[in-house]
Amino acid sequence: MTTPEFELPVRIYIEDTDAGGIVFYANYLKFFERARTELVRSLGVSLREGLSEDTSYVVHSVELKYKAPAVLDDQIVVTASIAHVARTYMDFEQTARHVDGRVLVLCKVRVACVALSNLKPKALPDELADALVLLQ
Amino acid sequence: MTTPEFELPVRIYIEDTDAGGIVFYANYLKFFERARTELVRSLGVSLREGLSEDTSYVVHSVELKYKAPAVLDDQIVVTASIAHVARTYMDFEQTARHVDGRVLVLCKVRVACVALSNLKPKALPDELADALVLLQ
Amino acid sequence: MTTPEFELPVRIYIEDTDAGGIVFYANYLKFFERARTELVRSLGVSLREGLSEDTSYVVHSVELKYKAPAVLDDQIVVTASIAHVARTYMDFEQTARHVDGRVLVLCKVRVACVALSNLKPKALPDELADALVLLQ
Amino acid sequence: MTTPEFELPVRIYIEDTDAGGIVFYANYLKFFERARTELVRSLGVSLREGLSEDTSYVVHSVELKYKAPAVLDDQIVVTASIAHVARTYMDFEQTARHVDGRVLVLCKVRVACVALSNLKPKALPDELADALVLLQ
Repeated sequence: MTTPEFELPVRIYIEDTDAGGIVFYANYLKFFERARTELVRSLGVSLREGLSEDTSYVVHSVELKYKAPAVLDDQIVVTASIAHVARTYMDFEQTARHVDGRVLVLCKVRVACVALSNLKPKALPDELADALVLLQ
Repeated sequence: MTTPEFELPVRIYIEDTDAGGIVFYANYLKFFERARTELVRSLGVSLREGLSEDTSYVVHSVELKYKAPAVLDDQIVVTASIAHVARTYMDFEQTARHVDGRVLVLCKVRVACVALSNLKPKALPDELADALVLLQ
Repeated sequence: MTTPEFELPVRIYIEDTDAGGIVFYANYLKFFERARTELVRSLGVSLREGLSEDTSYVVHSVELKYKAPAVLDDQIVVTASIAHVARTYMDFEQTARHVDGRVLVLCKVRVACVALSNLKPKALPDELADALVLLQ
Repeated sequence: MTTPEFELPVRIYIEDTDAGGIVFYANYLKFFERARTELVRSLGVSLREGLSEDTSYVVHSVELKYKAPAVLDDQIVVTASIAHVARTYMDFEQTARHVDGRVLVLCKVRVACVALSNLKPKALPDELADALVLLQ
């Protein structure tokens, strides 16, 4: 049921690295968020419009497995696919791969839809739910 | 007319460093913002209350001179003092120093008060302006 | 077998927040790393000395559960305790709590000891392993 | 004498924003560094090779003027051009512009070439100096 992988190319800049000479482990969560955002954008759904309708998205849980490090100047590909859609949340499966094919990081993320006003769960907007159904 | 230096101790963590083995140059702007925030907090003025009154603060301009690098585990002291207060902005003078006394970075920052709704300049809140006068 | 919680107070600054008005989800990994670093430092073990002996530490895997958001100016407490020590890795259990007692984020992290030269697993330094035994 | 502008498109992600709803002021220094890196890369000069020859680059000084804010989902263009080349440093002039043409941030940066081993100034590598001459 997992959708096709959306792919976002990411260049590793000095801002992404740490004194260990590799990409700082927290920064992959930035890359994964960028890929999720672009996946949703590719569906024609705008996050900012959601904000004006009291709808926001928050990360509910994350699982990360670090397989190999990326270093300065590396070109990597960050993927996102949707593994499951429920009434109030989406499950993403994501990877960061070096362009040479090596898997760097594996990630599972549950993103919940919430009301911006009180952060309580609410149903995914129809516009988004409908687009996700078409993707599967 | 510059006020006494407010001092904020900052420990250098791996998140602050880059593959060059030193603190990434943008991260000092985080440290300087923390010190300005704590200086204002020490005056008993709350930023968040300001937000609810359509008042926000934006950085207008910055000058940075990097004198020496900080590295992982270093303990540094970040200072902030107020060099000038105008109707709609404040000028800060700031330094980052190693605890051994070496100057690492010098910084001048102009912070403007704006209306959150339209980002146009507005007068500093009386509460803040009065507190700053007492400081000088 | 989990060790007592090491506690690190963390203030939420504007750098930690995002346009959703809450702490950006990746930034908790910075806070958790700070707490692990200070826990190890409290044992009298220096990370930087390790670096000169071809020893480094890399995060192997992370599990995060986001329970409630932190916002600007919040004072939170980030904890770290050691759940398990193996020959080449350590398992940490960590929490981020608001000072009012609410749990914000739960985290499990496996940190592996590797050779800096080739990033292959190697045994934890005796100095660190011995200190961890005393802690339990 | 300033070289033609190198242009790097940058999308604003949630990681770039803060609770004020705009791009956090320090993050433009990340964008400006990316543009300088890509400008140098476009000249066929590799930073990483330099590192292996005891050559590194450090920021000496920065001037920033913030003219207008960028917000979530904005598409901006970050430029870099070289205003002056000396024996041991380069002066860059940079801008961040919204794709609608509005200037967001102006920046001047002096980047110095240093020996990685002791961080003392050293002459720009011939490879880089020659490429910069061709650019002007």
